[in-house]
Amino acid sequence: MPILQPIVNLAELLARKGITDVVVSPGSRSAPLTLAVARHPQLRVRVMADERSAGFVALGMAQQTKRPVAVICTSGSAVYNLAPAVAEAFFQQIPLLLLTADRPHEWLHQLDGQTMDQVGVYGPQVKRSYDLPADYHHPDSRWFMERTVQEAITLTQLQPAGPVHVNVPLREPFYPNADEPFQYEPVRLITTLTAQPSLSAETWHELLDEWERSERILIAVGQLPRDPALLTVLGKISNELGVPIVGEIISNLPVNDHFITHTDTFLSGIGAKTADALRPDLLITLGNSFLTRNLKTFFRQYPARRHWHLQPTVDRITDSFQSLTTLIPADPLAFLEKLFADLDYQRFLQGDDDDETNEYLNQWQSINRRAARLVEQTLSQPNQPLTDWSAVQLVLEQLPERSILHLANSMPVRYANLCGLSEQQHISVAANRGVSGIDGCLSTAVGAALATDQIVTLLIGDVAFFYDRNAFWSAPVPANLRVILLNNDSGHIFRMIDGPGKQPELETYFETPHGYTARNTASDAHVAYQACDSLASLQSLLPDFFQPSDQAKLLELSTDKIQNQSQFATYKSKVKQIPKQL
Amino acid sequence: MPILQPIVNLAELLARKGITDVVVSPGSRSAPLTLAVARHPQLRVRVMADERSAGFVALGMAQQTKRPVAVICTSGSAVYNLAPAVAEAFFQQIPLLLLTADRPHEWLHQLDGQTMDQVGVYGPQVKRSYDLPADYHHPDSRWFMERTVQEAITLTQLQPAGPVHVNVPLREPFYPNADEPFQYEPVRLITTLTAQPSLSAETWHELLDEWERSERILIAVGQLPRDPALLTVLGKISNELGVPIVGEIISNLPVNDHFITHTDTFLSGIGAKTADALRPDLLITLGNSFLTRNLKTFFRQYPARRHWHLQPTVDRITDSFQSLTTLIPADPLAFLEKLFADLDYQRFLQGDDDDETNEYLNQWQSINRRAARLVEQTLSQPNQPLTDWSAVQLVLEQLPERSILHLANSMPVRYANLCGLSEQQHISVAANRGVSGIDGCLSTAVGAALATDQIVTLLIGDVAFFYDRNAFWSAPVPANLRVILLNNDSGHIFRMIDGPGKQPELETYFETPHGYTARNTASDAHVAYQACDSLASLQSLLPDFFQPSDQAKLLELSTDKIQNQSQFATYKSKVKQIPKQL
Repeated sequence: MPILQPIVNLAELLARKGITDVVVSPGSRSAPLTLAVARHPQLRVRVMADERSAGFVALGMAQQTKRPVAVICTSGSAVYNLAPAVAEAFFQQIPLLLLTADRPHEWLHQLDGQTMDQVGVYGPQVKRSYDLPADYHHPDSRWFMERTVQEAITLTQLQPAGPVHVNVPLREPFYPNADEPFQYEPVRLITTLTAQPSLSAETWHELLDEWERSERILIAVGQLPRDPALLTVLGKISNELGVPIVGEIISNLPVNDHFITHTDTFLSGIGAKTADALRPDLLITLGNSFLTRNLKTFFRQYPARRHWHLQPTVDRITDSFQSLTTLIPADPLAFLEKLFADLDYQRFLQGDDDDETNEYLNQWQSINRRAARLVEQTLSQPNQPLTDWSAVQLVLEQLPERSILHLANSMPVRYANLCGLSEQQHISVAANRGVSGIDGCLSTAVGAALATDQIVTLLIGDVAFFYDRNAFWSAPVPANLRVILLNNDSGHIFRMIDGPGKQPELETYFETPHGYTARNTASDAHVAYQACDSLASLQSLLPDFFQPSDQAKLLELSTDKIQNQSQFATYKSKVKQIPKQL
Repeated sequence: MPILQPIVNLAELLARKGITDVVVSPGSRSAPLTLAVARHPQLRVRVMADERSAGFVALGMAQQTKRPVAVICTSGSAVYNLAPAVAEAFFQQIPLLLLTADRPHEWLHQLDGQTMDQVGVYGPQVKRSYDLPADYHHPDSRWFMERTVQEAITLTQLQPAGPVHVNVPLREPFYPNADEPFQYEPVRLITTLTAQPSLSAETWHELLDEWERSERILIAVGQLPRDPALLTVLGKISNELGVPIVGEIISNLPVNDHFITHTDTFLSGIGAKTADALRPDLLITLGNSFLTRNLKTFFRQYPARRHWHLQPTVDRITDSFQSLTTLIPADPLAFLEKLFADLDYQRFLQGDDDDETNEYLNQWQSINRRAARLVEQTLSQPNQPLTDWSAVQLVLEQLPERSILHLANSMPVRYANLCGLSEQQHISVAANRGVSGIDGCLSTAVGAALATDQIVTLLIGDVAFFYDRNAFWSAPVPANLRVILLNNDSGHIFRMIDGPGKQPELETYFETPHGYTARNTASDAHVAYQACDSLASLQSLLPDFFQPSDQAKLLELSTDKIQNQSQFATYKSKVKQIPKQL
């Protein structure tokens, strides 16, 4: 019996459809897929033994390259170990192609090994789920396979991008004999053209009218990858049309004079009077999720009169602030560029081409500046101990220019958001805010580092780090990875939020202290390790830490959870005074 | 707003319905569930930070106690991290109650954190999936919750036992205020009676007739927990009725004079002539999956004329050997006891109460003895190096009497099966042969050790060990756990089976060597560690290793994959000669 030629051809299809990277976990049922990709000259294959890690590594790669990454695993529970990354990819809109080997279905419930019901196993957490045939004798079967795999690859990238599942039942033999030819046959490529959503002139004018009728317009940006063109148009809209642009660190909005990035500080416990001064008539949102409760609560408690949300497809109503009035099918960049061009032209026709001075924008910018100063004051106390927050601020300041930053859940991304990143740094920020798990942050950063030559810095807490330490297991850890581990020996967020902090069960059932340091984990993985317990030593270590090297590096900061908590409490007490100053 | 009283009551329901153990992973959405069980005086709660590990720890506990264990996790990808254990529990028929916290469904696809579609998330890999209401104002909602949770608990235990999913959407507030009363209200218990399947007298006589008409009858036992009563009746059926009883190490059949436990050795490459001599007319199977391909292939290639399979419910046709003729709804023990009693009584009536001497049984027993000798000879070569197999044999011999043995996938369980366990040891054997993953073997053994005071010994390879090392993370590791780690620095099975062993991709894509030893992992987890690299030192270490202690122990054996392979190759070449000697 010959090898499974249609499975060999599958690798050719992946390569021809633009896939360059595959993450594989070992298995025997999946061996035909593994050999097909491993032997293909245009595919780079990375092997990760733990499928959970493999899924997140693939996600990290695709997050950076914006191209689908294929993941191959064997049958049985291996398939479920990919599921956490699948859910994150779905809600973060990252293209992944999941190729899960399976036993032919007739063996289900026949007490055979590594056999479970894999068809549609990821439920609604994938864009679509396919099941290939186990037999290829009829030419229609081969036609179905080639067509389906191409459709699946295309679908991963169609907006909103996301994971697509192709289940692959496989019969033995899995391995070619030594004398057997192993070659890729030509495949017929089907090109799927894509189109941008385009609004009718009439609809467009109605939107412009609504804009013109609105006195106070605000744009809020959810999670988005860094896009300089988008930053440019948002900057112009703010400067020239007087529109506050609100965002968080995961929106990849840098700290500068016009962007409003300190909402988490100044919207905390905001009173009705200040809120009224800040509340927009027309709110425009774009991007994915927002990070902080303060921002979300503000827009829900003080809803805009009109709320537009821009998203590539409108098959689902995304009404995050319970105020949506218009859902607009649009690529946000294209939409905003056209919007700005049209409004700018109108202003030119009206002879109104001065930059608008706008009281509304001023109010947002002024309270934002106050919040920034408050954060700065909090962190620049003399004799400052090493806390998670002050460490995060120092690291953010020292990041190499144009490098990549991955912010782990749950406290690091929040601390980083309180600090922000300056415009001159050109840092690209990623974070797993699709379903916001701690389960794959280290693996995602490893994947990002594999996909780029730039330095990738991960800011991560101890629970997320040890949870996902298998990311380090399948060597080598990429040399451009830098891990800053904030080790406060606990799931620190539970102490920082109000509810659990007051329960007698806090330590045992929520924080779960473990006493681990990362020294051994780093040593096992051949990752260069340094420990640090003061701000001064952190300051002195960082420049060298960020230098290129031939080995990944981990810097473990030991912080004290009580000191972390007390710094945050001081900050919170000061925060209450901000809105009153408006 | 008061705390969520119906959620508090849920803990009372668990306790009243006989649940004693709960495994919890930290989370804020799940906090009401966590507090409810943590404060309940009759529930023992174990906290594991990694949900994947938590799931398997619960499985290990339920595997030993035969009682459902509840698992609590927070919303989002945490739920998916339980899925590998859920699949294993489903196919291994272990009762688990999965309580997954969820956001109220109206928040799905609204860009909110840790929100995914959790209803029915485990698909057909749970017995049933429930979704509780998020609002309890209407009394019918409370009635629904109490009824549903009781149904779910009952269902976990109804044969075949298995996991049941209860999704629990929760609204804030999650935490009671300090001055708020926290008490369990009385709940109305609904007792669900259970019944044994009972065959009509007519059906029973037809079965007895078929037995009487069959000349060569054989009973094959798949995976089953140790049951002395079952061993007794099987022993009698073999001794007094001349029926070969075939099983594997996971069937908990010990090595003795009548049980046939060396099939993996002597059925390997069996010729047609020998096969004809061994082939039954009537095959009776019971239990769950069979371990080895040799056994399964034999019964498929040489199908019995009639094949009965005993299983508690008959809603699915389990036809593992493609020879099934009668599916019998029965508890195997009850069925076999009645069968033996009836047949024995008939023999008494017929004055035929001598033990039968039976040529068919003799043939099976004789070839089985030869296989046992061959294994013994292979392992007793002079100057034997420390190989995985010889280590396994030595460990099995030295196990403390009446202790528990967990055999990890994939090579340890196979080596152990080649050796067997003597009857005098009274060892209870467990292995994750539901979907046969390597993903939770260490956690399952930790769970088993938590559920018993006996020594629990785990035999595990390096890939399975490091894959699941988070089992050790949430301290303390139970002191009665003994881990024997066979570290050959690879996914060794791929070298031992024919296909991948011959591919140039063997090391990189299948074995995935990592260079890790467990010294650091054990040290981080405060597990006593010893390393060993010779049979003599293993022999000298084991007696003390198995002594009770106040700390879990890990013994790491470094073996060489080439020596492992060559020992196995020698064995295989000898095996070919066995059938010819019949």
